[in-house]
Amino acid sequence: MAEKKKQLHLTAFMRPVSLHTGAWRYPGAYADANFNIKHIISFIQSLEAAKFDAFFMADHLGVLNMPLEALKRSHTVTSFEPFTLLSALSQVTSRIGLAATASTTYDEPYHIARRFASLDHLSEGRAAWNIVTTGNPESSKNFGREEHVEHGERYKRAREFYDVVTGLWDSFADDAFPRDVESGVYVDPDKIHVLNHKGDELSVRGPLNIARPVQGWPVIVQAGQSEPGRQLAAETAEAIFCSPRDIDAAKVLYADIKGRAEAVGRDPDHLKILPAALIVVGESVEDAREKRLKLDSLVHYDSAIASLSIALGTDASKFEPDELLPEDIPETNASKTSRESVINLAKKDGLTVRQLASRLGGYAGLAFVGTPETVADELEVWLNEGAADGFTITFPFLPEGLENVTKRLIPELQRRGIFRSEYEGTTLRDHLGLPRPKNRFFS
Amino acid sequence: MAEKKKQLHLTAFMRPVSLHTGAWRYPGAYADANFNIKHIISFIQSLEAAKFDAFFMADHLGVLNMPLEALKRSHTVTSFEPFTLLSALSQVTSRIGLAATASTTYDEPYHIARRFASLDHLSEGRAAWNIVTTGNPESSKNFGREEHVEHGERYKRAREFYDVVTGLWDSFADDAFPRDVESGVYVDPDKIHVLNHKGDELSVRGPLNIARPVQGWPVIVQAGQSEPGRQLAAETAEAIFCSPRDIDAAKVLYADIKGRAEAVGRDPDHLKILPAALIVVGESVEDAREKRLKLDSLVHYDSAIASLSIALGTDASKFEPDELLPEDIPETNASKTSRESVINLAKKDGLTVRQLASRLGGYAGLAFVGTPETVADELEVWLNEGAADGFTITFPFLPEGLENVTKRLIPELQRRGIFRSEYEGTTLRDHLGLPRPKNRFFS
Repeated sequence: MAEKKKQLHLTAFMRPVSLHTGAWRYPGAYADANFNIKHIISFIQSLEAAKFDAFFMADHLGVLNMPLEALKRSHTVTSFEPFTLLSALSQVTSRIGLAATASTTYDEPYHIARRFASLDHLSEGRAAWNIVTTGNPESSKNFGREEHVEHGERYKRAREFYDVVTGLWDSFADDAFPRDVESGVYVDPDKIHVLNHKGDELSVRGPLNIARPVQGWPVIVQAGQSEPGRQLAAETAEAIFCSPRDIDAAKVLYADIKGRAEAVGRDPDHLKILPAALIVVGESVEDAREKRLKLDSLVHYDSAIASLSIALGTDASKFEPDELLPEDIPETNASKTSRESVINLAKKDGLTVRQLASRLGGYAGLAFVGTPETVADELEVWLNEGAADGFTITFPFLPEGLENVTKRLIPELQRRGIFRSEYEGTTLRDHLGLPRPKNRFFS
Repeated sequence: MAEKKKQLHLTAFMRPVSLHTGAWRYPGAYADANFNIKHIISFIQSLEAAKFDAFFMADHLGVLNMPLEALKRSHTVTSFEPFTLLSALSQVTSRIGLAATASTTYDEPYHIARRFASLDHLSEGRAAWNIVTTGNPESSKNFGREEHVEHGERYKRAREFYDVVTGLWDSFADDAFPRDVESGVYVDPDKIHVLNHKGDELSVRGPLNIARPVQGWPVIVQAGQSEPGRQLAAETAEAIFCSPRDIDAAKVLYADIKGRAEAVGRDPDHLKILPAALIVVGESVEDAREKRLKLDSLVHYDSAIASLSIALGTDASKFEPDELLPEDIPETNASKTSRESVINLAKKDGLTVRQLASRLGGYAGLAFVGTPETVADELEVWLNEGAADGFTITFPFLPEGLENVTKRLIPELQRRGIFRSEYEGTTLRDHLGLPRPKNRFFS
């Protein structure tokens, strides 16, 4: 009997309308999906029918720092908040994982631990926490600080925050609740742990006021690619959402992160590397390319230049559109990774500000554009050559671009035996092949 | 044609198992309702079928400060978090209001504004915010503080917090989103307001990253009865959840709060006063009383003394059970109202520590115990004599005690023409007869 082939893991990286700023103008788009949950319900139910591992909600703690004049093109100024949205979606789905982004810089570990535990109970074991340190410097002003928290400081707090949150999740043993009506004992006090954490950044007593999550801990997700980001991911993450520019870069990143995980004593198979990729599926390769070009043509220059401003952490509208990017772009506290990759992209391809902005305003990252067969070929190569354990898929336009993936690409992956046709288990850990963490205080 | 009778407003004040600590041992109780949303779905669907105004989720930011040994009797150590729970419930209901408790002391206004706006959009206009300042001194230790925030300071911050949250809700005009595909304009920048709040306690830039709530603002609810609590309520609340001990006290409180509202220029009819009441309905008055006695008998002394400890803000287990309450109970930063009312109750009725604890461990507040007819008589008197605009109902045990109200008391109220038989509107503001607030930045 043939050995089972290595399996792809697929998550959907979502904003209500799309991550692509032109997508709301695409024919058939649901331009009101950021006010109207009915559209999002239709998306997640399609993804669940296609057996996706998880639905992953992107998030920001503010309106992105673009000039007001450029904001007018953007459907991202309004969106549902992730916990309220995913909790609502937990009741219209039964198997697909639910990943929420939550910041360690502008929130409290007690709140974060509670909400993810609650989402995990409500969804019967489908929650995941995408740990972010919040790179958008404008966010700080919504939280009482004039100055953005410095990059290294954010990662130091993030590491301690993770220890506190996971410690709070372990407040109760799994068998802490006898609920014995006769004797009147609801909970066994010997199976409650008071954390009493006092660290450099945080002081949290505990216990948490909710039972241990169904999954033990919700799945830990991360996106960091900077040096402290990679190390935090290797130590703590179970799924990594990264942005390599091509398969060669992906292989290097894959080996680096798996190696770091092994170096800290972890099983590298318990950390799934899922590069972000735009997928556009068409009738022919040419048809798919035309769809993408049509989509990019819907990005207004105002939006494009705003995207460039965010990526660089500086107002790019003051640059000359038809000249090269200036050499002396100031360093900021925004995400270092995005700033450097944009500067490198401009240099590598010799792009003008306008060309660079249009690329970024559309989608500048990894993309697979073709027929179900050609895209499946590429995904299979990435999977089998040690570049990825799966993908974090971004859809170019909704609903059509999503349906092209769920109805046409997924059946092709299933036919090849590299993606499930049914969910084997019930929790997100089951889908991803991740173990349930042991409780550090109770065996 | 007869004038329409004055109408009762009814909300259900809920914890997953019950607010009554003995309730999980009552025959037929769902002792696992704090892990299992299916039970809570059955409760809210019964309440919606009975046309309740709202489902109101109580909350605490920690495990209550009872000794670990007493904790073992308590089903309240574990519960869902309110935003995740109510968002989930928004998808299995269509009309009933959804009220969540959120603290102004241990959270950020940007987060609170976002979550309530998101819940209001997800539920199509059914959210309400119960503003609390968090009286439980143990909570502070879960949020990095050794000392609890002092009572007056908490109310000062609460008032400013309210201004910031409502200001953030007004970030966008109602018609801010033309979504014009042709011109590529999604949002009108002239209809976005940047708050730029800088106050004594808070500094928040804005704008909020979500459109104005369906209701303009979610309904504002409050429970304070202390002097600063009453004033905050008169200035800001639209529904007040209070705990008068009898109808005479209720009339005084009603007149005081409505008068304060008028004094600050508000229409007193836009502030609904809804005293909290336990309702036990039986076949006869005697049957109802027996049910209540049976329930109280299920409260273990450990739980009773823990309830007393919370109410006093001090460990009551060190007192002699069969003697009177000591005279020299120390003042703490716990809720002043609850401490004073407990001391007064003990003095008035000459109760020993044990007697006082048993009363509190059960339910010491206002209660209506009788047949559908006798209870309806009492509610009608309160409504018509200026003691209440309705009630915040606590059920003694679930599901039976809830079903006794929805299936037996509600039809009696409907027969008398003092409670709706159908929802007239779609939003919680419609149910409560409250106007949609004007946007302070856009007319």
